[in-house]
Amino acid sequence: MAYIDLGVDEKTFPGITGPMSYRPETAKPLNELAEVLLRAPHSLPAADRELIAAYVSGRNECEFCCNSHTAFAVAQYAAADTADGASIVAQVRADLDSAPVTAKLKALLRIAGAVQQTGRAVTPELIEAARAEGATDLELHDTVLIAAAFCMFNRYVDGLGTFAPPAPEDYTPMAQRIVEQGYGIPVQR
Amino acid sequence: MAYIDLGVDEKTFPGITGPMSYRPETAKPLNELAEVLLRAPHSLPAADRELIAAYVSGRNECEFCCNSHTAFAVAQYAAADTADGASIVAQVRADLDSAPVTAKLKALLRIAGAVQQTGRAVTPELIEAARAEGATDLELHDTVLIAAAFCMFNRYVDGLGTFAPPAPEDYTPMAQRIVEQGYGIPVQR
Repeated sequence: MAYIDLGVDEKTFPGITGPMSYRPETAKPLNELAEVLLRAPHSLPAADRELIAAYVSGRNECEFCCNSHTAFAVAQYAAADTADGASIVAQVRADLDSAPVTAKLKALLRIAGAVQQTGRAVTPELIEAARAEGATDLELHDTVLIAAAFCMFNRYVDGLGTFAPPAPEDYTPMAQRIVEQGYGIPVQR
Repeated sequence: MAYIDLGVDEKTFPGITGPMSYRPETAKPLNELAEVLLRAPHSLPAADRELIAAYVSGRNECEFCCNSHTAFAVAQYAAADTADGASIVAQVRADLDSAPVTAKLKALLRIAGAVQQTGRAVTPELIEAARAEGATDLELHDTVLIAAAFCMFNRYVDGLGTFAPPAPEDYTPMAQRIVEQGYGIPVQR
């Protein structure tokens, strides 16, 4: 049970959805940030951006965010006709160097991994390595901000002791809603 | 110099103001979040909320955010007729246990310090200690989210290698602008 009374059934409002229901004034900019970073039109596919979110959340050991953004990445890969999204996310999380993603995405994930530790861990060498694989300024900016934002979302979710559904399939309906309608659609009570 | 071309003179747009000028789509929700958490009417004074931001930024060793939110806290304490804001912030950062703040604020700062490490470091004991000093659910929620948000802002600022003015007095004009006009007012070019 969460550390504060969120005013909702936590099985219906798991993870971040409980605090977002409790405090709509902060939920509004948080959802808007997620929508711009993860789902708005972009040179980086939505699936790859969700993968960055899942990767950082995994490194922060945030069960709800890692499970949910893994499901969102898989759903976005499926929407883009990539059938093996689940395997891609699992391999990136297990061993980035050998994972079946482009050299550019690997370089961006290495920057995200540095940001997860501390912003000061990002080096000119990590940035140049991503540029050498074709990363643009906007892609570098958004990778840093996605990774930074999940260092916030992860701490928000775990710092309030919210409930994380245990099974991966528990996140499928949420993933369908995010892919189809986006962030910021209120959960039905 | 920042890792990407922010399109502005970094002396005029230091720290987070450069990336915010570069990417207004993400600046909008980031400023709205800061405004709700740090400056909107609240049972916790704005000065105390800025102190939480400065405290977390100091622990993350983010020079720009720590210097700027220290200046914002001092300016908010002055606006509330507390003359020794600078000494309060310095003592909280040096030794929280002996600092001249209320037992409630100390308990909230201990929660913020846990969140700075990881959301999973927040314990029922830390929450109960703050409740015993009179902290409300909203104050607990906002303390966790302020601390989490600065784990994002700090990583955003440092992960892009932005410029931090070295002298505390460099942050005074910014502090005046925040106290009087709030977050989200564009910097004059």
